[in-house]
Amino acid sequence: MIKVAILGATGVVGQQFVAALNEHSWFEIEKLLTSVRSAGKRYDEALTNSHTGTLEWFCDSPLQSSIAQMVTEDSSKFDPSSVDLVFSAVESEQARSLEPNYAEHTPVVSTASAFRYEQDVPILIPGINNQHLDALEIQQERRGWQGFIVPIPNCTTTGLVISLKPLHDDYQVEAVVMTSMQAVSGAGRSSGVLALDITDNIIPFIRGEEEKVETETCKILGGFQGAFTPANIRVSCTCTRVDVSDGHTEAVYVKTKENCSIEDAKKSMRRFSRSLADLGLPSTPSELLLVHEDPYRPQPRLDRDTNGGMTTVVGRLREDKVLGGVKYVLVSHNTKMGAAKGAVLVAELLHRKGLLKRR
Amino acid sequence: MIKVAILGATGVVGQQFVAALNEHSWFEIEKLLTSVRSAGKRYDEALTNSHTGTLEWFCDSPLQSSIAQMVTEDSSKFDPSSVDLVFSAVESEQARSLEPNYAEHTPVVSTASAFRYEQDVPILIPGINNQHLDALEIQQERRGWQGFIVPIPNCTTTGLVISLKPLHDDYQVEAVVMTSMQAVSGAGRSSGVLALDITDNIIPFIRGEEEKVETETCKILGGFQGAFTPANIRVSCTCTRVDVSDGHTEAVYVKTKENCSIEDAKKSMRRFSRSLADLGLPSTPSELLLVHEDPYRPQPRLDRDTNGGMTTVVGRLREDKVLGGVKYVLVSHNTKMGAAKGAVLVAELLHRKGLLKRR
Amino acid sequence: MIKVAILGATGVVGQQFVAALNEHSWFEIEKLLTSVRSAGKRYDEALTNSHTGTLEWFCDSPLQSSIAQMVTEDSSKFDPSSVDLVFSAVESEQARSLEPNYAEHTPVVSTASAFRYEQDVPILIPGINNQHLDALEIQQERRGWQGFIVPIPNCTTTGLVISLKPLHDDYQVEAVVMTSMQAVSGAGRSSGVLALDITDNIIPFIRGEEEKVETETCKILGGFQGAFTPANIRVSCTCTRVDVSDGHTEAVYVKTKENCSIEDAKKSMRRFSRSLADLGLPSTPSELLLVHEDPYRPQPRLDRDTNGGMTTVVGRLREDKVLGGVKYVLVSHNTKMGAAKGAVLVAELLHRKGLLKRR
Amino acid sequence: MIKVAILGATGVVGQQFVAALNEHSWFEIEKLLTSVRSAGKRYDEALTNSHTGTLEWFCDSPLQSSIAQMVTEDSSKFDPSSVDLVFSAVESEQARSLEPNYAEHTPVVSTASAFRYEQDVPILIPGINNQHLDALEIQQERRGWQGFIVPIPNCTTTGLVISLKPLHDDYQVEAVVMTSMQAVSGAGRSSGVLALDITDNIIPFIRGEEEKVETETCKILGGFQGAFTPANIRVSCTCTRVDVSDGHTEAVYVKTKENCSIEDAKKSMRRFSRSLADLGLPSTPSELLLVHEDPYRPQPRLDRDTNGGMTTVVGRLREDKVLGGVKYVLVSHNTKMGAAKGAVLVAELLHRKGLLKRR
Repeated sequence: MIKVAILGATGVVGQQFVAALNEHSWFEIEKLLTSVRSAGKRYDEALTNSHTGTLEWFCDSPLQSSIAQMVTEDSSKFDPSSVDLVFSAVESEQARSLEPNYAEHTPVVSTASAFRYEQDVPILIPGINNQHLDALEIQQERRGWQGFIVPIPNCTTTGLVISLKPLHDDYQVEAVVMTSMQAVSGAGRSSGVLALDITDNIIPFIRGEEEKVETETCKILGGFQGAFTPANIRVSCTCTRVDVSDGHTEAVYVKTKENCSIEDAKKSMRRFSRSLADLGLPSTPSELLLVHEDPYRPQPRLDRDTNGGMTTVVGRLREDKVLGGVKYVLVSHNTKMGAAKGAVLVAELLHRKGLLKRR
Repeated sequence: MIKVAILGATGVVGQQFVAALNEHSWFEIEKLLTSVRSAGKRYDEALTNSHTGTLEWFCDSPLQSSIAQMVTEDSSKFDPSSVDLVFSAVESEQARSLEPNYAEHTPVVSTASAFRYEQDVPILIPGINNQHLDALEIQQERRGWQGFIVPIPNCTTTGLVISLKPLHDDYQVEAVVMTSMQAVSGAGRSSGVLALDITDNIIPFIRGEEEKVETETCKILGGFQGAFTPANIRVSCTCTRVDVSDGHTEAVYVKTKENCSIEDAKKSMRRFSRSLADLGLPSTPSELLLVHEDPYRPQPRLDRDTNGGMTTVVGRLREDKVLGGVKYVLVSHNTKMGAAKGAVLVAELLHRKGLLKRR
Repeated sequence: MIKVAILGATGVVGQQFVAALNEHSWFEIEKLLTSVRSAGKRYDEALTNSHTGTLEWFCDSPLQSSIAQMVTEDSSKFDPSSVDLVFSAVESEQARSLEPNYAEHTPVVSTASAFRYEQDVPILIPGINNQHLDALEIQQERRGWQGFIVPIPNCTTTGLVISLKPLHDDYQVEAVVMTSMQAVSGAGRSSGVLALDITDNIIPFIRGEEEKVETETCKILGGFQGAFTPANIRVSCTCTRVDVSDGHTEAVYVKTKENCSIEDAKKSMRRFSRSLADLGLPSTPSELLLVHEDPYRPQPRLDRDTNGGMTTVVGRLREDKVLGGVKYVLVSHNTKMGAAKGAVLVAELLHRKGLLKRR
Repeated sequence: MIKVAILGATGVVGQQFVAALNEHSWFEIEKLLTSVRSAGKRYDEALTNSHTGTLEWFCDSPLQSSIAQMVTEDSSKFDPSSVDLVFSAVESEQARSLEPNYAEHTPVVSTASAFRYEQDVPILIPGINNQHLDALEIQQERRGWQGFIVPIPNCTTTGLVISLKPLHDDYQVEAVVMTSMQAVSGAGRSSGVLALDITDNIIPFIRGEEEKVETETCKILGGFQGAFTPANIRVSCTCTRVDVSDGHTEAVYVKTKENCSIEDAKKSMRRFSRSLADLGLPSTPSELLLVHEDPYRPQPRLDRDTNGGMTTVVGRLREDKVLGGVKYVLVSHNTKMGAAKGAVLVAELLHRKGLLKRR
């Protein structure tokens, strides 16, 4: 078994890593890392609200008792060489200071945005840009690290890029307009969306989100040959928050260079949906992409959990006469494929490619 | 006082007409018209659910007792020459059969879509396309009517067109991409959206809505000189339903022919916002259009009732590099400016222009 | 396999029967019965909205293709002797006319209220009042039927009675005050709760509901020895509707004759929770009743699906000084244990008790 | 004009005081007091989120520019003798340390619970227990203060007590069972309810709430003759949180000593509803209590704003056979009559009774 540490283990994303790794056939949780304040406690004690006495475990599946009993460690004193892999689930600021220390010795797969935009760091979605793993060698050389950092994208980018990939491969995407209707779970808990602000309402702005999606989309769909060459796609977004618990919905308008009919787009997407199947990664969904014919789909409540939340569900494929291409609606699970489970899939790919070394 | 009849008086939109005309300084409700099933009852009895005994009056303001006591009439036997104006609040199919009978004698202002797309029928928004009233003379001649039919647009079109009008006047709009997040009140009550279907959810499709918005936008922003010449604007929409009670939110991307900076767009919109003020219509809001600087606005719950629900509120004005123009978010009250109150504003304009004749 | 027919197969509850019987080890769907309007169609065609072309299948699990292809039959012409059991999922009025015709030949397990309050008809919850099955012999004799009718309770009664049963057995319940906060799915679809009415709101009245709960609770917890003797429990309810999709929440206050401490109540409930286990019925949950210690539980979204929605989850057990007893909060899944799945459990009990005869 | 200071002026309740005092005919805001961190800034700057640049003003009515420009003061250095009255809108802990310092010189009307349960402190609702103001003289003597502290009740107590008062006066209330369904605004913003936790859900526990309601109800409905004698009423509550923005809904069951029919209860409540009218206080609603006949009322969204949120709306009055009395449902606006506006009403009463001295 590959021994992993989870950085930020008490946070919501950290908990999702714990849940995602429950009975994983390749990975075993060796360390749970927290800030100094929570360190040295049993994991279940660290999760217990001291005011209310409540166990603040937010995943659907129950907390395994073997994990509950593990004693957490101070992330600032952690020896990364004691594990084969670190999953990082901290905020960007903390990631910026901690992840490089770990990566000196050990691979880090991160949900944080801290390093996404660096020249030698890939933003990875398995099945979309596996070849970007080539950047890791350069990252290691340039930084003198034995390990490396691989971030996953922002959760809003993930579904968008998965849906664009087949169209870009087959018909060359030139421009994208996207309006998102994002779930409240995307804002997390520490500065989460108040019911008071979103009940019977929409919040039309999520700070920094649009820029992330626009930049990440081009980087992920671009090439890497010694250096990243972002895809030449113009992307324009409006990111909004709606009163949905989980699952980001996106209305997408795509301009393609090559002529792409509705049937072309469906075929392209459906052919692509099995593209990750061959590698035999444990978390690969049966379809990366699912295309609905029912015009009332996708809906976040009905479709977010397709294949355990790992599938991007597309519907309403129509011709778009403004951009000159196709338009559609997608739903993607922001806290599953878009967060911890997506990062575990990256780790599985790293292992399959021989990039994780057991000690 | 101008004597008016309300067709479809017991429906939700009909009730909104009753509320909108309460203490109106120009108009007086003379007749309440219903289907034969409800006809001949006191209005409050016609509104009372026979199973539950509940008065099904759905407006915020209380039902005036003088109106409550009026006896409803069968719309199929109504003599339109007994009033100066008819407000029509029925579904499209009924409108198609009843409105022409009335219009033979009397002006009809309608919320129904039945006649919107006919060659001699204007779709009117006061302050936007007043000159389209010229079509009424042709309509009367061609059809041999003494009255006429003036429909208002679909509630999703209204806010969009109001926001586009100043940009089109000043910078010539060439293309529009719009994604709507529409309130459940837009679906009405008889086939309304079930809580079961929209709680924690989004429905990505509203049958017929996108086509309406695309067609109506061009007709309203186009010219009329003996015939309608639709504006040469390509429009592409995705219309979705969200769990918001009232107020449609729209993310809009606009391509302009002339170069239009953010500041240009704001100035253009703000200058325009007072364009209806001069006519002194009782229902004119102090601003047709309000531009917010706070990036977290507009929000439907906070902004829909601006100036009694008659103002379109715009925010998040940004440059759009894909279409080559500007993008923004708007909120417009679908059951106020977008329905009965918007129709009353049209009637006020008709009166000001001398197009209503008192008997 | 026991051959069953589903009456009202296209309705929401009928669909839930179809889903609940998918791969059932004892029961096999032989007939899908509908009104004459839908009869003679393939089941999937009968479920397809003719306006929208959408398959209106409302269960989480997919519709099995073997069932989708079955041709529906007109319920008014159905020969009940062609099956071993009928599950009835129609409204009360229809149940009143159709169920007796079927019961003349074949056992009927019903979710309708039509016959619940008759002197020879038990309202059954397996594990609570199995002995009431003795009434069936009398029902058959009195009515000259070979079959019989067994209704399940109203969905709001179910969780209440399951939580009261152990307290009544051990400490004798004398009075109950209950306030419910009921899910919108309880109102079904044909006259379902509009989002417009429940978003940011509570509806404090559900017609007929309080009387049902008050009557059914006493009947179910009472005895049967040749005749029903309702339990001598005073019950007072307030039933409200809240914006929750599934899962009824109830705040319960109980007066017991014998002194019952908090610990007594917990022990009593926990001991009881395994009371149905011995019979080996396929749908029996591992616990009929689950008692939480966390004061923030039960919550409908977190707890309704416990053991497939078959477990009543109780929390906040506290002393009640007004009534003289205990108070608590419960969550029970209204469309699972409270409807089709609860009815299937009844059918399993009937089979175990030898009351179903295979043809 | 009476000069007032607002303690905790930047918080949500503080803002509500600012809004409630806008154009008040008796009171004028002289000082806005904040923690040292916000002190010395213009009020609008103090309300501006430094991360987002957004003015975090949460009231419906706009922030008056004259108030926006006031410079806030450090509450720990404030000289209370510079004003005639302090409105306190801080959390309980802060109230415990600051309010006595102010009360040494100046009357304090507080929304905090800190002093509610002290022997010489009344919990005041105008029209309910005006005579408890007699305690202030004792409070001043005992503590050597020139001013005093008058808290208002917990927002859940307010509506309950207002509805019980006429029944207690006329029929002597002996016991009350109450289940609340409380709005999310009751939890405020700093530790507010996350959408993630309440969408499609109910939280069955609000820490400390039930004890507050039980204690406060008896104190307010009790007598004062030199000392408080709590009413001899047993009260048992379950307080829950639901996905409603504003307005607490409560299902109430009341045992009366004297026989009280439904009609008796309605008459009693309606007679009482005008009991505060004679004093001519500016914030007195036309009715303290409004009794609905429609069984579908009260509903929080429809009824919370009755008379500016100052009226408790009651409906569903029915006989209760368990307790022996009546049961009903009420809605009360938790952030209006239940918070700042209720406190302003108390201050008006103090002024009318000659208990505020102008400097």
